[in-house]
Amino acid sequence: MATLSPLAPKTFVSLEPLAGIRLASHACGLRYQGRTDLMVAELAPGTTVAGVFTRSLTASAPVLWCREALKGGAARLVLVNSGNANAFTGSAGVASVRRTVEAAAKIKGCKPDEIFIASTGTIGVPLEDQKITDALGEAMAGLSADKWRAAAEAILTTDTYPKMATRTATIGGVKVRINGFCKGSGMIAPDMATMLAFVFTDAALPAPVLQDLLAAGTAGSFNAITVDSDTSTSDTLLAFATGQAGNPVVSGAKDPALRDFRKKFNDLLLDLALQVVRDGEGASKFLRINVTGAASARAAKAIAMAIANSPLVKTAVAGEDANWGRIVMAVGKSGEKADRDLLAIRIGGVEVARDGQVVPGYDEEPVTAHMKGTDIVFDVDIGVGRGKATVWTCDLTHAYIDINGSYRT
Amino acid sequence: MATLSPLAPKTFVSLEPLAGIRLASHACGLRYQGRTDLMVAELAPGTTVAGVFTRSLTASAPVLWCREALKGGAARLVLVNSGNANAFTGSAGVASVRRTVEAAAKIKGCKPDEIFIASTGTIGVPLEDQKITDALGEAMAGLSADKWRAAAEAILTTDTYPKMATRTATIGGVKVRINGFCKGSGMIAPDMATMLAFVFTDAALPAPVLQDLLAAGTAGSFNAITVDSDTSTSDTLLAFATGQAGNPVVSGAKDPALRDFRKKFNDLLLDLALQVVRDGEGASKFLRINVTGAASARAAKAIAMAIANSPLVKTAVAGEDANWGRIVMAVGKSGEKADRDLLAIRIGGVEVARDGQVVPGYDEEPVTAHMKGTDIVFDVDIGVGRGKATVWTCDLTHAYIDINGSYRT
Repeated sequence: MATLSPLAPKTFVSLEPLAGIRLASHACGLRYQGRTDLMVAELAPGTTVAGVFTRSLTASAPVLWCREALKGGAARLVLVNSGNANAFTGSAGVASVRRTVEAAAKIKGCKPDEIFIASTGTIGVPLEDQKITDALGEAMAGLSADKWRAAAEAILTTDTYPKMATRTATIGGVKVRINGFCKGSGMIAPDMATMLAFVFTDAALPAPVLQDLLAAGTAGSFNAITVDSDTSTSDTLLAFATGQAGNPVVSGAKDPALRDFRKKFNDLLLDLALQVVRDGEGASKFLRINVTGAASARAAKAIAMAIANSPLVKTAVAGEDANWGRIVMAVGKSGEKADRDLLAIRIGGVEVARDGQVVPGYDEEPVTAHMKGTDIVFDVDIGVGRGKATVWTCDLTHAYIDINGSYRT
Repeated sequence: MATLSPLAPKTFVSLEPLAGIRLASHACGLRYQGRTDLMVAELAPGTTVAGVFTRSLTASAPVLWCREALKGGAARLVLVNSGNANAFTGSAGVASVRRTVEAAAKIKGCKPDEIFIASTGTIGVPLEDQKITDALGEAMAGLSADKWRAAAEAILTTDTYPKMATRTATIGGVKVRINGFCKGSGMIAPDMATMLAFVFTDAALPAPVLQDLLAAGTAGSFNAITVDSDTSTSDTLLAFATGQAGNPVVSGAKDPALRDFRKKFNDLLLDLALQVVRDGEGASKFLRINVTGAASARAAKAIAMAIANSPLVKTAVAGEDANWGRIVMAVGKSGEKADRDLLAIRIGGVEVARDGQVVPGYDEEPVTAHMKGTDIVFDVDIGVGRGKATVWTCDLTHAYIDINGSYRT
């Protein structure tokens, strides 16, 4: 693994066993030497599933499989390999997924569409699926309730640390738990930095309810982060609910009984998403962009994303330069309603621009000090409405170019 | 001026006098020491004008002025300063433009809306317009028909070379000439790399005809290039026709008599636009992306731009890595119609991917050699329709980060 990101969490959370789930990891030798590259999660009968996937129109074979399998709403096994993304592998890739799923279904004694699969790593290279299917029996023999960290580590590629989060919540007075882990460090290079996330709960949640919760929770978490504006062919977020906690039946995603669960679930998704940003390729600064006063929430998010994805904003942050002019530029290029003379910008809480002009004699000292830190905050008020949004990103550094300019060679 | 771009033209064209136009440059001391920062172009009575501007919603005061002045269709004077963009300067910036234009109109003895103005340089800092108006008389005393290169140099900021082009054409058997110059080296940083372009012809062209020609010519030239996906608040392209060549009256932009002129005019616009790309901040490679087989021309351009603006594609090019997987990724993220299994990609003319898979055993040697050169060509066939487009860009290098991470400090 590469040098630990300077933005990495100071401590790593430990995930406790969760009723109805066993995990295993294994070294199949797909690409890496001396590390695991296969993660298996076994789910108890009755487990429901939900998923959100890349919007890429060149999605990988595993993504196409999961989209179809999701229609059944039930899951018994999750297989994730690192080292090879099985993307842009044409009909060979589709056949590879099919063989893997069928072999797994046979061993597990379930239907193929209860098997979920994800792959991350090199693209355009045929996946040696036989290495996976050959290893599956041995890997599954090692399934255990407490292998969360090993599972989180097996799916990593260019990540510099495993990304895990856990929460507890109550539904109808019954305590339930949520564990999750993910990988990703570009948003998202197709080679080695696809974003994959897996969330598990022992709550009893019908698949359509879990799907609604997941879709809603993604907007403010995984869909509110960006590292380099690039989208993987393989991005996958899957959620599983084993139902073992025995909470009362819920009527829908808006059931008042889900209030606490929804909050904790969203919080865990955001926790995982921000861990991805903090491991952004070459990142030296973590940047939070709050946009207020936009014409709508959608406009606010578009503006925040325009700022977050601007190479000029990102290089200024890397250079510890409080260059609010580039924020203005990014607002302008977003295409969303804005009025130059109504813009106000705060950096680290200090107002540097107001009514379309620099704030005369603003105190540069705290702004400079803020830019030298690792956690940077921009507050941008558009002044034309009440729409707001927050987006997180990282800076653009020499290390990003080193990582991505020499990957294959 | 910074070190000359490695992609700079080997020789610089010399622009000959053009009937009805005199030029001057002057050092007003707005920001730079020891160089000119004001360009003045004087236009004969009867000169028509057309313009295309940034789509930014936070456009600068000079852009707002030009958009209004354009309605008159006539031009007598162009004033361009470098060193200060007069952008994000609020009502002070608007007043500054007003004062400059009124002073110039008085000296020239014309209407204010016959004065066109553009500014490039630092943003958010009030423009000391008195330095310009004080110098105007002296500057205009130096007007001369042969100061094209001096004019082209006065408007530069982070550019590493002046950008000029010239063409001759015939309209109705009469020979006419077109001269142009421009500046820009990011697409386009608001600080110091705004794109400004000025094109002059002695042809007689009514303002609406010139406007139609300019708008049509921009699509395939200045709107088909990108350096870093960022949009300036000040981008300005102005065209002027003095009418001194005495060509027959044309009926409209589609008049068959304009066939040769249109071709040469578009060619000159593309020449200037590509000089901007070749001076892209930190650029070490010039990249041409041809997309064919898209659902429409619009879709083809969107796909080509998605490839051109992808940091992962741009860093791969910088690293001389024929990473076609990232091209696939960019096609996918464009949101335009595509089918993974129909994509074909050529790098330097060699087919590396076809039918959604790597071409087995393709010859890597010429591809590697091509990537080591400075002029890179990607041909991407989407395979779903007949839409095509070409876009030009440069790579993303350490030098880009050096330039933009430390600009203000």
